[in-house]
Amino acid sequence: MASWHLSIDGLRPGDSRREESLLTLADGMLGWRGNYEEGTAADYPQTRGCYLNGFYEREKIKYGEIAYGYAENSQTMLSVTDGQAIRLICNGAPLLFGETDVISSRRSLNLQTGVLDRTTSYRIPGGGVLTLRSQRLVSMARPGVAAIHWQWTADTACQLEIAPFLNGDVTNRIVQDDPRVGSGLQGRALSRPEIRWTGDVPCLTQHTEKSQLSLACAMACRISSDASAQKHQDDWQAGLRYMLRVQPGETVSLHKFCAYAWGDIQDAARHAENVIAQAADAAQAGYPRLLREQEAAFSTFWDSVGLEIEGDDDLFVGMRFNLFHLFQSAGRDGRTNVCAKGLTGEGYEGHYFWDTETYMLPFFDSTQPDIARKLLEYRYGILPLARKRSREMGHPTGALYPWRTIDGYEASAYYPAGTAQYHINADIAMAIRRYVHCTGDIRFLDEMGAEMLCEISRLYLDLGFYDPSHGGAFCINSVTGPDEYNALVNNNTYTNLMAAESMLYAAEVLHGMARRDPDAYGRLAQKIGLSSDEPDHWRQAAESIYVPREENSPLIWQDDAFQSRVPWPLSTIPKENFPLLLHYHPLVIYRHMVCKQADLVLAMLLLPHRFTEEEKKAAFDFYDRVTTHDSSLSHAAFSALASRIGNLKKAYAYFRDSAILDVEDTHGNTADGLHMANMAGSWFCLVYGFGGLDTEGDMLRFHPILPPPLKSYAFRLNWKGSVVEVRVNGNGPACRLVSGPDITILAGDRLLSLSTARTV
Amino acid sequence: MASWHLSIDGLRPGDSRREESLLTLADGMLGWRGNYEEGTAADYPQTRGCYLNGFYEREKIKYGEIAYGYAENSQTMLSVTDGQAIRLICNGAPLLFGETDVISSRRSLNLQTGVLDRTTSYRIPGGGVLTLRSQRLVSMARPGVAAIHWQWTADTACQLEIAPFLNGDVTNRIVQDDPRVGSGLQGRALSRPEIRWTGDVPCLTQHTEKSQLSLACAMACRISSDASAQKHQDDWQAGLRYMLRVQPGETVSLHKFCAYAWGDIQDAARHAENVIAQAADAAQAGYPRLLREQEAAFSTFWDSVGLEIEGDDDLFVGMRFNLFHLFQSAGRDGRTNVCAKGLTGEGYEGHYFWDTETYMLPFFDSTQPDIARKLLEYRYGILPLARKRSREMGHPTGALYPWRTIDGYEASAYYPAGTAQYHINADIAMAIRRYVHCTGDIRFLDEMGAEMLCEISRLYLDLGFYDPSHGGAFCINSVTGPDEYNALVNNNTYTNLMAAESMLYAAEVLHGMARRDPDAYGRLAQKIGLSSDEPDHWRQAAESIYVPREENSPLIWQDDAFQSRVPWPLSTIPKENFPLLLHYHPLVIYRHMVCKQADLVLAMLLLPHRFTEEEKKAAFDFYDRVTTHDSSLSHAAFSALASRIGNLKKAYAYFRDSAILDVEDTHGNTADGLHMANMAGSWFCLVYGFGGLDTEGDMLRFHPILPPPLKSYAFRLNWKGSVVEVRVNGNGPACRLVSGPDITILAGDRLLSLSTARTV
Repeated sequence: MASWHLSIDGLRPGDSRREESLLTLADGMLGWRGNYEEGTAADYPQTRGCYLNGFYEREKIKYGEIAYGYAENSQTMLSVTDGQAIRLICNGAPLLFGETDVISSRRSLNLQTGVLDRTTSYRIPGGGVLTLRSQRLVSMARPGVAAIHWQWTADTACQLEIAPFLNGDVTNRIVQDDPRVGSGLQGRALSRPEIRWTGDVPCLTQHTEKSQLSLACAMACRISSDASAQKHQDDWQAGLRYMLRVQPGETVSLHKFCAYAWGDIQDAARHAENVIAQAADAAQAGYPRLLREQEAAFSTFWDSVGLEIEGDDDLFVGMRFNLFHLFQSAGRDGRTNVCAKGLTGEGYEGHYFWDTETYMLPFFDSTQPDIARKLLEYRYGILPLARKRSREMGHPTGALYPWRTIDGYEASAYYPAGTAQYHINADIAMAIRRYVHCTGDIRFLDEMGAEMLCEISRLYLDLGFYDPSHGGAFCINSVTGPDEYNALVNNNTYTNLMAAESMLYAAEVLHGMARRDPDAYGRLAQKIGLSSDEPDHWRQAAESIYVPREENSPLIWQDDAFQSRVPWPLSTIPKENFPLLLHYHPLVIYRHMVCKQADLVLAMLLLPHRFTEEEKKAAFDFYDRVTTHDSSLSHAAFSALASRIGNLKKAYAYFRDSAILDVEDTHGNTADGLHMANMAGSWFCLVYGFGGLDTEGDMLRFHPILPPPLKSYAFRLNWKGSVVEVRVNGNGPACRLVSGPDITILAGDRLLSLSTARTV
Repeated sequence: MASWHLSIDGLRPGDSRREESLLTLADGMLGWRGNYEEGTAADYPQTRGCYLNGFYEREKIKYGEIAYGYAENSQTMLSVTDGQAIRLICNGAPLLFGETDVISSRRSLNLQTGVLDRTTSYRIPGGGVLTLRSQRLVSMARPGVAAIHWQWTADTACQLEIAPFLNGDVTNRIVQDDPRVGSGLQGRALSRPEIRWTGDVPCLTQHTEKSQLSLACAMACRISSDASAQKHQDDWQAGLRYMLRVQPGETVSLHKFCAYAWGDIQDAARHAENVIAQAADAAQAGYPRLLREQEAAFSTFWDSVGLEIEGDDDLFVGMRFNLFHLFQSAGRDGRTNVCAKGLTGEGYEGHYFWDTETYMLPFFDSTQPDIARKLLEYRYGILPLARKRSREMGHPTGALYPWRTIDGYEASAYYPAGTAQYHINADIAMAIRRYVHCTGDIRFLDEMGAEMLCEISRLYLDLGFYDPSHGGAFCINSVTGPDEYNALVNNNTYTNLMAAESMLYAAEVLHGMARRDPDAYGRLAQKIGLSSDEPDHWRQAAESIYVPREENSPLIWQDDAFQSRVPWPLSTIPKENFPLLLHYHPLVIYRHMVCKQADLVLAMLLLPHRFTEEEKKAAFDFYDRVTTHDSSLSHAAFSALASRIGNLKKAYAYFRDSAILDVEDTHGNTADGLHMANMAGSWFCLVYGFGGLDTEGDMLRFHPILPPPLKSYAFRLNWKGSVVEVRVNGNGPACRLVSGPDITILAGDRLLSLSTARTV
C-alpha cells in the first residue's frame, strides 16, 4: 500500500532547506515553508519563508552594459510577515531546533488531508523531556488563512513561556552567482510594520516602497490552560505571551490562527480589517472545524484526480506529492498565476513563466478547470502591458508577453534566455486552445481569448518574414526556443510550428465567432482595429512556415544551424560539470551540439499531428543523445515521447526521473523550491504518455501502454464536464464515467459510450 | 594654404564639451582636456579631465543575471588630480568662464607645435577689461609634464589674486543609458590626497582602493612680478596664491609646471619624489625651453608623416588634426596602449580595443615604428592573463585576449559584443605580421611575437572544428565579428579568414625561427610545451577554412546566415533612429539585414590577396546598401575599398566622412572623446586607399589614384628603415627616398630604385 505521507525523521542540517521546500503548505495564495515554529539555532541552515502569491517588490535592474529595450525592473516575490512563529521558553531557556538537545523529531506531510504533523522531543534545561506535537494547515477553504495546533507534555514539572507572534522583521535570502535563484533584491524590502490590536488580536501592516503594495497579517490564539495572555510587541513584532507551569504528564494545547491579505497600498486599512475579522472567525470556528474543511477540500481534489499506481510505490508517492503541490501552488483569483517554484521557495524570484501554460495547464484543464480559467484570465489581465512591450520591441502591432514576470512587465535581465523566447506567445495561444477544447468554455474566447489570440498572431506575422533564401517560406529569426542551450537561433522548429498553430487557431476562432456571434466579433474588431484580411495573412504565414530538415532523412533539426554545432559527447564532460550553465560560459554552450531540454521533442507532444511516427522516432533517438536534462522540464517530455513511439523502457525511466525529482532532490536545488513544471510534467507523462491521451475532433482518445514494472494505473479527466476514469492494467484499459453527461470516447480505434457508473 | 590651427571663437555652452575633446593636449601618458584653467560657471557644461594612460579603478560588475565566465570587474580610466587649475580673482570676485561677462574669447590649437593658445577678455567687476592670454603644452619631450603660460593685462588698475593649484577633488562624469560611454564607476574613486611641500612645490599623492594604484602630481610656479607666493591648502587641494595690483596696460605672466607619475601603490613615495624633481626641473629649464622642445618633437613628427593635400583644405586640416591626436594618444612605455578615445575623454571608459591593432598600428608601423613596438609589447605583457581567460572560456590550451581592457582582464560586460569577438586574437596576430613586415624587426618575434602567435593559433584550433555539415571545412561558430549588428553568428568571414591567416603566419614564423635560431625555437617550444606537429594542425585548419558564398555569384556573405536576415531598407528608418543601437533592442537589430560596419569590407582590405576583384566589387555594392556606419570605424574601410575597386566618388566621400568625423562631430559624441580608430582610419584611406599601398613579397608597392577634387597629396612611409615619400598629382606618382638605406619599390608594375634625395 503506497503511503499518503512524506515523512522525515531526525535532525539533518544538510538537508534542512530542502525539507522546508518539501514540507511547504499553501493554498494558492499563501505559502508557508516547512520551518520550525519555535525557531532554530542561528547557524542551522534555513530559509524561513511565508509567501503571498503575487506580492513582490521591484528594483531597477543594474546591467553591466545597458541597451535599448532591456527590462527595467526586477520583481521579487517577498518573504512576508512570519505567522509561523511561536517562541518556546522552558525554565528560562529558549528551545531552538538544532541548538537545544533534540532526542527525536519526526515530521510528516499528510498528502491526503493537507496538514503537516510534527513530534519533537527536547531535553529541557534542568533535565527531563518536553515533547511537542504540532499540526498545521494552510486553509484551502479560507484562502490566506493558516492554523497551527500545538500540544505539549513534559515528563517533569517545568516552567513554560509560550509566545505566538507575528514577525515583520523578514528578508529574502541573498543569493549570488546562481541565475536560477536570482539576486534582484538585496536586504530589507518591507516597511516597519504598523501594529494595531483588536482585543487580543494583533495585526501587522507592512508595505513595499517601489511596487506600492501592502499586506496585512493578523493572529488570534486559543490556549487550553487558564494561563492569561499578555500582549507584547516591539518595532517589528507583536504577539501574545503565556506563562504556565506544566506538571509531569500534563498536556496543554495552543491554537494559533493567522490571516493574510494584500493589495494596493491605498487599501491597507481595508486589508487590516479583513484579516482581523478572518483570524477571529477562524478562532471562533475552532481548529477541528478548519481541519474538517481541509480534509474535505483535499478529498474533493483527490477524487477529481483519481490517481492510482500499482507496481512502484515510491513513484506513486512521488506522483501524489507532485499533484499535491501543484494543487497548493496555483493562483485562483485571476490576478495571480503559478510561480516556477510555486509558493515553496524563492527560486526564480517567484516569477511566472511559460511553465504554467505548457506544463501545468494540461493538468488543471483536465482536473481543475476553474483554476485553469483563472490562470488564463491572468494573461488577459496583462495583455495591455504585452501590447506595450511589443512596441518597445520594435513591432508596430500585436502583443508580446513577458518571458518572466509577476506584474506583467518583462523581468528577464538576460534577453538571450529571456525576451528572445518569443515562443511564450504561442504557449499561451495553445493553452487557450487546449483549455477551450477540454472545457468547451466558448465564452472565454468571446470575453478574452479571441482578443489575446489576435494580438499574439499579429506579433508573429510581424516577427517573421517570407525568406527568399529559404524558398520563400515563412521564417522566424533570432529567437531562443525552450532549449536555452541554443540561443538566438533562426527557425527554431518549436517556435515556428507553435507560432503557425497559434495563427491558424486565431483565424479559426475569429471565423467561428463571426458566424456564432457577429456582434461580439464586431465589438472585438472595433476594439482592436482588426481588418478583415488579417486572419488570411495569418493563415498564409502559418501554411508557409519553415521547418529545418535533414535531407533524405526523417530527422528534423531543432533550428537552422543545429547540425552545424560542434559535437560535445556528453560522456566526455566530467559529472561535476553539470548543469553546464553553472560551469561553462554561454558561448561555450551555444557553440556545441547540446540541449538543456530538447524542444523539438516537446513540439512533438504538443503538436503530435505535425509529425510522422518516423520523425518522432528519429528525433527521440538523436536528441536523447545530446540532451543533458539540465532543465527539470526535460525528463517529462522525453518520457512522454518515448511512450508515444513505444520505447517503454525509456518511457518508464524518464517518468521516474520526473516523478521523484524533488522528493529525491536529483537536481540539487530543491532547497530553493519545488519544480512545479516538472511536477505537472510527471502527470503529463502518465496521462498523455502512458495513457496515450489524444483527441479526435472533439472526442477523447486513449492509446494506453503499461510499462513494466507497473501493474496498473488509473487517472481521471474532466472532458467538457464529464469526468472519465481510465484504468489500465494487464487486461488493457477500462473506462468509466464518474460524473457528468454521458460521453463517447475512443480507446484506440474502439468507440466507447459511457454513462454514469457503467464501466466499459 | 591649409591651416595648422584649429581655432574656436566665443562662448558656446552647447559645444563646450565637444571643444574640450578637440582641444586636448597629451603626450601618450598624460592628457589634459581643453578646460578653462580659471574654471567655469557651475551650470556651464564641461567635463573637466586630466587622465593618465593606464591609470584606472575597478568595480565589481553588477549583472542583471549572472552566468559562468562573465567578466568580473569593470575598469575605468580615472579623471585624476587636476593640474590645469589656476584661480583668478579680480577685485574680490572670481572670474569664471560662462559666468563673468566675456567680451571675446578665442582658442587655437596649434597642430604644428603642439600647444594650445587662448585669449579671453573679461569685463571685470568695477568696470574695465582684463585680457588673459594663455598658452599651454603637455610635453612630448618630458612625458607626464605639462606647462601653462599665463599672461594678463587690464585697461584699468585692479587687484588680482592668482592662485595656481592642484585639485585632488575630482570624479569621472556619471553617465547612464549610453553603452558607448559606460557606467562602471559612480562617484569618487581617488583617495583624499596626501599633501607634501618641498619649498614652494606642493605634491599631491592619491590612490585607488581596488586597483591599488597611486599617482603623484607636483607643481612648480614662476611669476614675472615681485608678488610673493603664499601657500594654501585644504583637504583636497594645495597651491600658491599671488596677490598683486595691476596697473593699466601692465603685463604680468605666470608659468605653472606640473609633473605626474603613477604606478603600484607601494611605490607611492618614489613617485612623489620623481614628480617633485620633474616639476622643479621643468621650472628650472623655463617655459621657453619646454616650448622649443615641444616644437622640435612635433617638427620631427610632421617630418615623419610628410602629409600634404591639395584641393580640399578642410580635409587637409582634418587629416592633420587626426594624425596630431593619434601621435598624442599612443602609450609609449610598453605597459599602456591607446584608449579608444585616446586621452581626450571618458568614452568607452578608457579601454583598449582591437582598434589599436587593426586601425592604428598601420599608421604607427609606417611612421613611428618605435611606438608600434611598444604597443605590441603591451599585448605580450598581458599574455599570461589571456592564457587564463582562455581556460575560463573552456579551452584547455591557447590564449584569448580580452575584448576590452586596461589591465589585461576582460572588462566587457556584454559578451555578445564583447568576449564573443574572438577576432581580437587574429587582429593582434595580423598586427604582429604587419609590424614585422614593415620594420624587419625579427627580434620582436623571437622575444615575444612567436609566443603570442602560438597561443593565438592554439585558441583558434580549439575554437573551430571540421564541420561535416559544411563539407568538412574548418568552421568557427557562435562568434561576433567586428560588425556588432550581427552577433553570435557562425562562420563570420572576417573571423574565419583572419584566424586562418594567423595560424598560417604562426606556422611560418616557427618554421623560420627553427631554421634561423634553433636555440631560440627550442627555448620557446619548451616554455610553452609546443609539440612539433602543432604547426601542421594550424596549417591544415587554415587551409580548410570555410567562407560562406552565394551560389553562382561573386558575392561573399558576412556569415553563414546573413542572407537569411530580414530586409530592412535603411531609407525606411527614421533619421532620428540612428545609431540603431540607441533606438532598437539588440534582438531587433540582430534579426535584420543591417550592418553597423561591414566587416567583410574590412577583411578585403586587411587580406586583399584572399579576394578577387569581382568579389570586392560585389561586396562593396551589396554591403554599401545595408551598412548604417553607426560605427565610426566604418567610413574608412568603405573609402579604402572603394579606392581599390576604382569607385573614386565613393572613395572620396567616405574619406571625407572619416577625415572630418570629429572636427565636425558628425557622430554627435565627440564630447565624450575623439574617435582614435577612425582618425587612424583616415590615414589608412589616404595611404592604403588612395595611395594603393600594398606589398609584393618584401617590396613596397603603390597603385595610386587621385579622386577629384584633390589636386595632389603626399605622405611618407618608413619601410624597414627607409623613409619613402610618395607624392601623387595629375602627372602620376613620384617617389623619393627621404632618409635611410637605398630601396627598390614598385609603382604599379614599374620597379623604382630609390637613393637618398633622388626623385623618380
